[in-house]
Amino acid sequence: MAVGRSREMRCERIDTERERSTMEAHIQSTTIAVLGGTGKEGKGLALRWAAKGHEVIIGSRDATRAQETADEIRIRAGNNARVRGADNASAAQEASIIVLAVPYSAQLSTAQEVAAQLAGKVLIDVTVPLAPPKVDRVQLPAGGSAVLALQEKLGAQVKVVSAFQNVSAGHLWDIEHVIDCDVLVCGDDADAREAAVRLAGDAGMKGWHAGVLANSAAAEALTSVLIAINKRYKIPGSGLRITGTPAR
Amino acid sequence: MAVGRSREMRCERIDTERERSTMEAHIQSTTIAVLGGTGKEGKGLALRWAAKGHEVIIGSRDATRAQETADEIRIRAGNNARVRGADNASAAQEASIIVLAVPYSAQLSTAQEVAAQLAGKVLIDVTVPLAPPKVDRVQLPAGGSAVLALQEKLGAQVKVVSAFQNVSAGHLWDIEHVIDCDVLVCGDDADAREAAVRLAGDAGMKGWHAGVLANSAAAEALTSVLIAINKRYKIPGSGLRITGTPAR
Repeated sequence: MAVGRSREMRCERIDTERERSTMEAHIQSTTIAVLGGTGKEGKGLALRWAAKGHEVIIGSRDATRAQETADEIRIRAGNNARVRGADNASAAQEASIIVLAVPYSAQLSTAQEVAAQLAGKVLIDVTVPLAPPKVDRVQLPAGGSAVLALQEKLGAQVKVVSAFQNVSAGHLWDIEHVIDCDVLVCGDDADAREAAVRLAGDAGMKGWHAGVLANSAAAEALTSVLIAINKRYKIPGSGLRITGTPAR
Repeated sequence: MAVGRSREMRCERIDTERERSTMEAHIQSTTIAVLGGTGKEGKGLALRWAAKGHEVIIGSRDATRAQETADEIRIRAGNNARVRGADNASAAQEASIIVLAVPYSAQLSTAQEVAAQLAGKVLIDVTVPLAPPKVDRVQLPAGGSAVLALQEKLGAQVKVVSAFQNVSAGHLWDIEHVIDCDVLVCGDDADAREAAVRLAGDAGMKGWHAGVLANSAAAEALTSVLIAINKRYKIPGSGLRITGTPAR
């Protein structure tokens, strides 16, 4: 019985991999560094992109830990997945798109450390300015938004966009879960925004051009609202959908 | 032909009114004052509540204009609808729930004028802190939220909640339109929040307990995001849905 089940599972895996390689043919593979990729949100995004055929580099202060997480993701995404680990600076250096998915307290310092490697590239900031322990209470920083402070710190040489604040890490990590959450993409550079909108699609979500970088305040604040809703209504990972498009 | 069509329309109207009176039996009628009820958002909300069987008082600085708007709403809502006009103070005095739907520039002054009439009551603030001409750019006030400033001004004697910032005035006014937009209700008083959640339901939308009053920053900011999305994707009144509830 156990042997039979194991064979059945192996067959399913092969089918899934076939489907994936077909899907991969339709996407333009990008090398994406996920700084803070050992954390829950970063790991979930990395898994989704690796499964879709992108080359993903998990970045961490600790390169060994990054490699362990990369191995974990590869097992989950399938053997064809291209995932490896590196220290943050090497990861940022080798990638064309960098995703910053560290806790709020480490946002500016991490970005500062790899600033030289970010020049001329797109940086997608996933940071939510939560202030524990009251994470279900909106507490936006002075200046109105965490990502605005980041863009100011890095200067115009880095194309900063904001995205993915509202998607549940648990849903991302459950590779079979169809994610019922849209992604608000905010940024002052239209091409950089478009890159993030496409990566939202590759991670299984609908991305929206949601306006200038300052509009990230909405997405950053919404996370606490969703946490409050999860708590009150006992929802494991609520999300949001934008409505009103005739295409839906 | 014109006569025949007119008769047909009258029959439809009667059927609709019958349905309404059946529906009215299921709701607890409340007297609602809508201050700024001559504006587009306030008028739309007033129409929905009047059509559902609530008693609605349109408040304005100009009582004559308020009465004209009330007449306009009554024609649209059906003859059984109970809508009248008054100056803001009288409207607030006679209602048990007051809705503040004035432009941001008039928010604090209007509330201050009727402060005595608000004592001990629920005030639902619909204000969005837009800063024209860049209404598609989030520009939250210092302190983080327009409604927090209002609560501070009025003091603890008024139970302030925030709601309805994200629903399109055009959709509200089109009484046959099924509104595809949820309502985030934020407030520090749970009973006051519950009153607004119910009124969202009576206006044809799903209301959510979205946490403390400070969380209104998310709803206030989202309006500019939705305006940006309307512009980019040519959507006449985008909205949002909260996802993840098993009940959906």
